[in-house]
Amino acid sequence: MTDARFGTDVYAHRLRAAAEAAATAGLSGLVITPGYDLRYLTGSRAQTFERLTALVLPAAGEPTIVVPRLELAALKESAIPELGVAVRDWVDGENPYQLVADALPGDGPQSVAVTDSMTALHLLPLADVLGTVPVLATDVLRTLRMIKDPAEIDALRKAGAAIDRVHARVPEFLVPGRTEADVAADIAQAIVAEGHSEVAFIIVGSGPHGADPHHECSDRELQAGDIVVVDIGGPYDPGYNSDSTRTYSIGEPDPEVARRYAVLQRAQRAAVDAVRPGVTAEQVDAAARDVLADEGLADAFVHRTGHGIGLSVHEEPYIVAGNALPLQEGMAFSVEPGIYFPGQWGARIEDIVVVTADGALAVNNRPHDLVVVPVP
Amino acid sequence: MTDARFGTDVYAHRLRAAAEAAATAGLSGLVITPGYDLRYLTGSRAQTFERLTALVLPAAGEPTIVVPRLELAALKESAIPELGVAVRDWVDGENPYQLVADALPGDGPQSVAVTDSMTALHLLPLADVLGTVPVLATDVLRTLRMIKDPAEIDALRKAGAAIDRVHARVPEFLVPGRTEADVAADIAQAIVAEGHSEVAFIIVGSGPHGADPHHECSDRELQAGDIVVVDIGGPYDPGYNSDSTRTYSIGEPDPEVARRYAVLQRAQRAAVDAVRPGVTAEQVDAAARDVLADEGLADAFVHRTGHGIGLSVHEEPYIVAGNALPLQEGMAFSVEPGIYFPGQWGARIEDIVVVTADGALAVNNRPHDLVVVPVP
Repeated sequence: MTDARFGTDVYAHRLRAAAEAAATAGLSGLVITPGYDLRYLTGSRAQTFERLTALVLPAAGEPTIVVPRLELAALKESAIPELGVAVRDWVDGENPYQLVADALPGDGPQSVAVTDSMTALHLLPLADVLGTVPVLATDVLRTLRMIKDPAEIDALRKAGAAIDRVHARVPEFLVPGRTEADVAADIAQAIVAEGHSEVAFIIVGSGPHGADPHHECSDRELQAGDIVVVDIGGPYDPGYNSDSTRTYSIGEPDPEVARRYAVLQRAQRAAVDAVRPGVTAEQVDAAARDVLADEGLADAFVHRTGHGIGLSVHEEPYIVAGNALPLQEGMAFSVEPGIYFPGQWGARIEDIVVVTADGALAVNNRPHDLVVVPVP
Repeated sequence: MTDARFGTDVYAHRLRAAAEAAATAGLSGLVITPGYDLRYLTGSRAQTFERLTALVLPAAGEPTIVVPRLELAALKESAIPELGVAVRDWVDGENPYQLVADALPGDGPQSVAVTDSMTALHLLPLADVLGTVPVLATDVLRTLRMIKDPAEIDALRKAGAAIDRVHARVPEFLVPGRTEADVAADIAQAIVAEGHSEVAFIIVGSGPHGADPHHECSDRELQAGDIVVVDIGGPYDPGYNSDSTRTYSIGEPDPEVARRYAVLQRAQRAAVDAVRPGVTAEQVDAAARDVLADEGLADAFVHRTGHGIGLSVHEEPYIVAGNALPLQEGMAFSVEPGIYFPGQWGARIEDIVVVTADGALAVNNRPHDLVVVPVP
């Protein structure tokens, strides 16, 4: 075992649980090409290329990995060699889609589910060979991937602590006259220096740019009086992501900014306080939205309250109106309401939380106040 | 226009040509989610997320981009705002797959082709709304993307010159006692320092590791007498990739190694010499293979001779037995025969070449000899 993955027993358990879920769903099996699902199930970081690599997981029977002979070596770092997965390597000239079909049970239900990241390049020829269009494995794998086990929660906590250390250093980067891109470069170095394996995303939205929730960074120079949204994260071995937003004020904020920020802070707190098993995802979203609406800020909150997180930065559960999914212990997601005033400024507060037996554990623990950066 | 893309006229021409190709193929249109095809057609570097972004290019009529409102800003850097593409932004609660269907012609053929990188997450719901399973757009876009225009050839030449400068520096990194990973770290810095926007791949295969064509790097320490395969590349703005392999010998090689390497060098030369319009891809492969076979080395060459290159490191045309595609002026691909002796050593020589009116232009121009690195 390396830092790059968990112990083999973790993956053995996940494979069994996925096969059981496939059986319960009436499927003959799952076909998983490289991506987060394959990494979740086997620890493999293999990538998708033009030659098919696919884990075939029958609802009953032994799993098989279909893999180009040239890419066999890349599986060594995964748990696959220790999991008793049959390896069916292939060379140019063979039809790998037929090998997938051969590794599925010949009798019983013929409906097959595929990982949601399978590309059309592989999915359409597979559908041809199977004679049926597969369905998405999302539903089958959702519960498994949403409920984090203790090792995963530990990984998310380490990632959260690392990004907290980066936020602690952000004020020193926010100097008037420097550009958003300058600040982002400093943050990128800090993200890696604090232990992440790489940078996943950096948003530095200063002044009016803070009003665009998906602004990344630009050559705009910071000015005294700017409100700056800093939303950052990246994967931490064995691949679990951090994601945290804090909002900074260069110099003391305008009183109206401070007033609205205080409402946002209450909204974020209300959403975290709403989290517990049995509460629905949309109720958490509503908890934040209601606080903002009561203060006339409903229209300023233009996105959902949060997204699940794990190996992927965005995964289920989505904390959004219309999602009646009841929360369960072990789910991990962001709580990140924001307020946006086009052409003026914006603010967002984001923590990753894990659902506990009776509430929420935040993996981010920096103060939630607007961080006032003294002007030199 | 920025360095990140070509001028808008380039993309306008490509969109027209793609629509014409779709019409010729009897399709109602193309649906292109983010990836190399979208970048090729519009200059957009947008990424695929759980919310659908898709360019809908009818065989006849105006193109539409379906895009989440939150991701509209990311299109600004592409040519889309200047191309007269209708923008249909959508918010959570709308069905973006229906918006795609609405942007396709209502009459005529109903067969739709999708980019090969479209994920199952989007492809399966799209197929549901369309009531038909799409086909791959690969065939329709193949000729367009395979034939590089002068701006693309210029970009490939710049990328080639940059990776040549890196290879010129490799001998100084190859010091006995250093690990393959140490060398790879130096090469990574050099790849960026020489102008690439990022590192795409680094293979440092020393001694027995050189016998695995897909080995990346390890903690193995270099030793005097090692033969070292170094296969490296990355994208160079506006996104065209370099890819070149040279083989190094730490100290003077064994005479039998030198003899076999000389055969490989002749094989690589023969394949490049075979390149001209009208010759088939498999004839180029055979040109290299025949030289090796004549010297009893047929079994040592375990992979195809090459792959096309451009925005993607691996794309069409593939230089492989069974590919009867006649080469055309403007095609760009690697010529990279190798010889592999499991448990002992390996060697490979790789240049990217562009088909000219009467032969091949190599974008890599480092000497092809085994590079002997003096032992300190």
